Amino acid sequence: MSEKNNDGRKATWIWYPGDFEIRLHEKASVRRRARGVMYPAYWRLDRHYSNVRFRYTYETAQEERIAIAAEGTFSVYLDGKDNYRSNAEALTLPAGWHELVVSVFNDAEMPALYIEGETVNTDSAWEVNSYQNDWVPAASWTFDSPDDRPSKFRLAVAAQEPKTIDFRDGYPLLDFGKETFGYLQFHSITGEGTVRIYYGESLEEALSPEECVSLDRFDASDAAARAQGGVYALEEGRAFRYAWIHADKGVRWERVSLLYEYVPLEYRSSFECSDPKLNAIWEMSLYTLHLNTREFFLDGIKRDGWVWSGDAYQAFLMNYYSFFDLDVTRRTLVALRGKDPVTMHINTILDYSLYWFISLYDYYLYTGDFSFIRQYYDRAVSLMEFCLAQRDGEGFIVGRPQDWVFVDWADLDNSGAVSTEQLLFARSLEAMSLFASLMEDAASASAYGALAEEVKEAALRAFWDEVKGGLLHHRVDGVTKPALTKHANMFALLYGYLSPERRRSVIRSVMLNPDAPRIKTPYMRFHELAALCESGEHDYVRREMLDYWGGMIDLGATTFWEEYDPSQEGGEHYGMYGMPFGKSLCHAWGASPIYLIGKYFLGVAPTSPGYATFRVAPNLGGLAYMKGTVPTGEGRISVEMDRSSIRVEASSGTGVLTFASAAPPACSEGEARARGDGTYEVSIEPGITYVIAYEAATIP
Amino acid sequence: MSEKNNDGRKATWIWYPGDFEIRLHEKASVRRRARGVMYPAYWRLDRHYSNVRFRYTYETAQEERIAIAAEGTFSVYLDGKDNYRSNAEALTLPAGWHELVVSVFNDAEMPALYIEGETVNTDSAWEVNSYQNDWVPAASWTFDSPDDRPSKFRLAVAAQEPKTIDFRDGYPLLDFGKETFGYLQFHSITGEGTVRIYYGESLEEALSPEECVSLDRFDASDAAARAQGGVYALEEGRAFRYAWIHADKGVRWERVSLLYEYVPLEYRSSFECSDPKLNAIWEMSLYTLHLNTREFFLDGIKRDGWVWSGDAYQAFLMNYYSFFDLDVTRRTLVALRGKDPVTMHINTILDYSLYWFISLYDYYLYTGDFSFIRQYYDRAVSLMEFCLAQRDGEGFIVGRPQDWVFVDWADLDNSGAVSTEQLLFARSLEAMSLFASLMEDAASASAYGALAEEVKEAALRAFWDEVKGGLLHHRVDGVTKPALTKHANMFALLYGYLSPERRRSVIRSVMLNPDAPRIKTPYMRFHELAALCESGEHDYVRREMLDYWGGMIDLGATTFWEEYDPSQEGGEHYGMYGMPFGKSLCHAWGASPIYLIGKYFLGVAPTSPGYATFRVAPNLGGLAYMKGTVPTGEGRISVEMDRSSIRVEASSGTGVLTFASAAPPACSEGEARARGDGTYEVSIEPGITYVIAYEAATIP
Repeated sequence: MSEKNNDGRKATWIWYPGDFEIRLHEKASVRRRARGVMYPAYWRLDRHYSNVRFRYTYETAQEERIAIAAEGTFSVYLDGKDNYRSNAEALTLPAGWHELVVSVFNDAEMPALYIEGETVNTDSAWEVNSYQNDWVPAASWTFDSPDDRPSKFRLAVAAQEPKTIDFRDGYPLLDFGKETFGYLQFHSITGEGTVRIYYGESLEEALSPEECVSLDRFDASDAAARAQGGVYALEEGRAFRYAWIHADKGVRWERVSLLYEYVPLEYRSSFECSDPKLNAIWEMSLYTLHLNTREFFLDGIKRDGWVWSGDAYQAFLMNYYSFFDLDVTRRTLVALRGKDPVTMHINTILDYSLYWFISLYDYYLYTGDFSFIRQYYDRAVSLMEFCLAQRDGEGFIVGRPQDWVFVDWADLDNSGAVSTEQLLFARSLEAMSLFASLMEDAASASAYGALAEEVKEAALRAFWDEVKGGLLHHRVDGVTKPALTKHANMFALLYGYLSPERRRSVIRSVMLNPDAPRIKTPYMRFHELAALCESGEHDYVRREMLDYWGGMIDLGATTFWEEYDPSQEGGEHYGMYGMPFGKSLCHAWGASPIYLIGKYFLGVAPTSPGYATFRVAPNLGGLAYMKGTVPTGEGRISVEMDRSSIRVEASSGTGVLTFASAAPPACSEGEARARGDGTYEVSIEPGITYVIAYEAATIP
Repeated sequence: MSEKNNDGRKATWIWYPGDFEIRLHEKASVRRRARGVMYPAYWRLDRHYSNVRFRYTYETAQEERIAIAAEGTFSVYLDGKDNYRSNAEALTLPAGWHELVVSVFNDAEMPALYIEGETVNTDSAWEVNSYQNDWVPAASWTFDSPDDRPSKFRLAVAAQEPKTIDFRDGYPLLDFGKETFGYLQFHSITGEGTVRIYYGESLEEALSPEECVSLDRFDASDAAARAQGGVYALEEGRAFRYAWIHADKGVRWERVSLLYEYVPLEYRSSFECSDPKLNAIWEMSLYTLHLNTREFFLDGIKRDGWVWSGDAYQAFLMNYYSFFDLDVTRRTLVALRGKDPVTMHINTILDYSLYWFISLYDYYLYTGDFSFIRQYYDRAVSLMEFCLAQRDGEGFIVGRPQDWVFVDWADLDNSGAVSTEQLLFARSLEAMSLFASLMEDAASASAYGALAEEVKEAALRAFWDEVKGGLLHHRVDGVTKPALTKHANMFALLYGYLSPERRRSVIRSVMLNPDAPRIKTPYMRFHELAALCESGEHDYVRREMLDYWGGMIDLGATTFWEEYDPSQEGGEHYGMYGMPFGKSLCHAWGASPIYLIGKYFLGVAPTSPGYATFRVAPNLGGLAYMKGTVPTGEGRISVEMDRSSIRVEASSGTGVLTFASAAPPACSEGEARARGDGTYEVSIEPGITYVIAYEAATIP
């Protein structure tokens, strides 16, 4: 069969929307191993529909031969004559107007269908249902030939060699030079006995057979028998930098390499500045995010290897400033949402259901892709219905006894109504209001919008403390408790929920107040530093990045960690969750400098869906010079800046460049309009390189 | 491992409640073949949870060795220390008080667990959850050894030989003498070529290679290669009496037998009377029901081989008067209900959701088994919530556009609110009220009870027609339409919803009115004849049985059919659904004489749950003599009657014998109390044989 047909239409594998992601997620969620033993995700794993049917109405002048391939058992019938079915792999369709229906059943992998003819080809013009009266457009991706089956999907692989091989206690210790992920491969293994492998993200971990998190064990002669082309590859992928291999005497091999497993991503952004340390942080952030960008955005590649909504919320944003890979974004959003009924919050965490809505909002803002929103709108509605049922008498969303109200890894009392949750809830309702209006459901749009306003107003009223000048943490039985945390305050800043006075108060009295409880996790530092950038504190944020992320690099990190406490020493850094090597040393949320730099230093952000319009607000934040590119979908925006000139070019869309200047700026390509507060703006049209002469303000 | 432990406790395989049935149902629902091609059930097929965990808290004085077997990948941890897991097949548990948790993942078959130790053994004292905060007692059945795995469950098999082998057109035609089900087996097959088998429930069907519904085709040398012990068994079971085998020249075999597949059932009831035809009807009814009693109660073994709630409602009732097999009853109820969310009615049919509640009510009435009700109460609640959402402005339950409002295979206009549906709805709400009160939820019990009363009263008000003297069929836009059908009237009689006057009116003006539209399907004849028996029309019912069921026997039936129209001739009888052999000739609903005879001729029925109390109201209905037994759970009730004596014995429970007598009866074992209308009653205590001398009234 050819991939292209005469009429230029192309057949592709099709399936029930979401089922590809849900099946993949089911498999990925049970890959985690604790010292060789399964550690499955602890939320309900949803499953693909095993019994679906596809339909398509065609009209042809002549009878047509089609070839049919299915993942599963299938049967075909025409025009509703379901007693007269065929399971032949090739059929001649009669000419004229006919409805073709194909039932496919598969209880092992997702049912999928591929039909190729002259004019009749499986594609998104087909519909599918799960026998719930839910005819919807069939989903497809890039499986465009009969043999390229959705169930066979796996990430790309490439060979990697260890950088060094050392011997410890007589056993080879492989160092791949930096954190990596894949399958060790033994070339030409011989002899009899057992091979044990102890992996480490750190050297210390690999050298701790009793405590390392990841390990393998196999029988050498068994491995030799299973080798293909002389190479025995381990069956499960591992995240590590070091591998210490203990083999029984008599077991020999030629060499050990790694089958590195990864998503082939294009690095669509760039950044280079006058500070080499910050450049290193940028590069390491990209690599950290890349390793965690897999079937889904993972929290960490060693641990948990799971898909967490709060972690993904940040990874999505980082992705818009790096790979702009929408496939993994969509896969992650669909997998997180799963299927109905919603009986627990996403990942069991109240905040994590809310981040899902906000992530979907961001997806639309950065991509302008309404088709995806439309496809999953119903699932957004039912998740929101679940959330709306969890409100207390004041209308605040609260956790049920079985829910986890997380907010942050910190010693927080999250009883009652937590202010952070209310702001996330209001933002989620705003997102739903937007989606409803895109769906042309004005009544729902208005209802969600009114609810969003109500929740926001009630929260700002109930949690604001005039004396402390910020939002307090929580409220129990209708009484707001005195505890102050930064969390709600930073979301209020980020979502623009504060009046100018309160905004100033929050920055001064909370965010920059050394007596406010410090945020310790990179997870919440993401939002904290973003909020500080929103408030113009770029110089502070740059110094924080150099300290915190630079601190990890100084300790030898090759990817960024789940948590970093500068006060710890030596091996202490690797412990977490009561385990000496429990900490993940390659954690997606550790990569947040990508987002901070792209959005707040290079200063690029969409102001309408899909970067149809955008803003560029570059800020050196104390740097002498920076240069970089941010992807904007198909296009990109380039920014270059030093203390006297700014150069901006956008490949598409129209935008506004804003910047501060101590003297009136000059621009040949456009007008630099004064905004009256020492800042200026220049309108940006696509394809033009704007060069502005300006004068950077002296840092106070 | 021994099956018994020292302390007498026995280990058994455990799993998440309902998942065994749901997985089995998923597989059974796609077995139907239309001329070799898959014809899957056309409703959503639910699936087992792939990711579950089990827990058990033990206290032992000494450490204990346990053996662990799982269906799926498993990991064990103690006391919440989930980072320290084991997947060893044997473990030593520490002494003291500990919580043991076992995660099991299995995406192919249902996750299940078997642990055997001295005191720690998997059984119903364990809990299980699907990570939805739903810790519930684990389910188990009869899988009591490590090798007897739930996923390996299959029905019993036994060899059967053809009764005759004839040759038609030179090809052997096997006749198994009566309808049967199983796998043809070829003994010592040799040669090369193709073997084609055409099956028939009727001779005509087997002899129609182009039109028979069931067929097989295999390659002889392939079969020889796959033979075990010289026997090649076909992989899929078929329902048939005749098999016509066309083999290519050169293909030879020693003989063909059948691996009959069945549930080993005890025939717990008996019936014998003075009419040999009625005896034959009884026996054939039992065989018809037995063949359809499989993993679940099926509608028919050839077609559809599916589980339909309305069909099962009747099979359940027949089962209480024959095999009293509660395993298949429970399996069927669980499979029909499936999982949440409820988005469509059971089998897509409004009435079929309602029959489910009523079937559950009957289950409790006949068995007194509250534990099963408790286990599935939540699923009953959510199904009822779905139904309650489908009410119109008058509070009547109505079909949505995507729902099938079935009532009967007849030319009915089921638009608007259908009276039959309202009576089923009221009965369902009564059932829910009972279940809620058993669950000690008084508020819900009262709310369901009030709703039941409301629906019933509103229906009797809206649909009653004084002129026609019965309930009309439906109501559109608040206006009751003039069409009269028997359907609602018979349910009103059966459920005791009518006043004595209306009852008389319905019998006279509707049920026995020759101008009322005739009921043609055995499906609704079940209820019609039961309603007539409730009204004392036994003689009429007996004659109907002899005509209708006797008519099928006269035509050579060996099991009862899906439908029978005496006006048809020859091969016409086998056609249905536009196919010449579309009719099922072994249909469960054809077996209703079991129920009519047991409940209304022998007259046995429970009057409180589990036959704690019962009534025996034997009625010869024109017979000279009858004798029979009805199971009552563990026990049984025997009844023998001719026109001058009645003999009754119950092995347990207490009951009341009622009967009509033209003269004052005599009983040595108890007092025959006159009820004043020519009927008498005798209290029945267990273990006593009551012999009553009486005088049968002359049939008018």
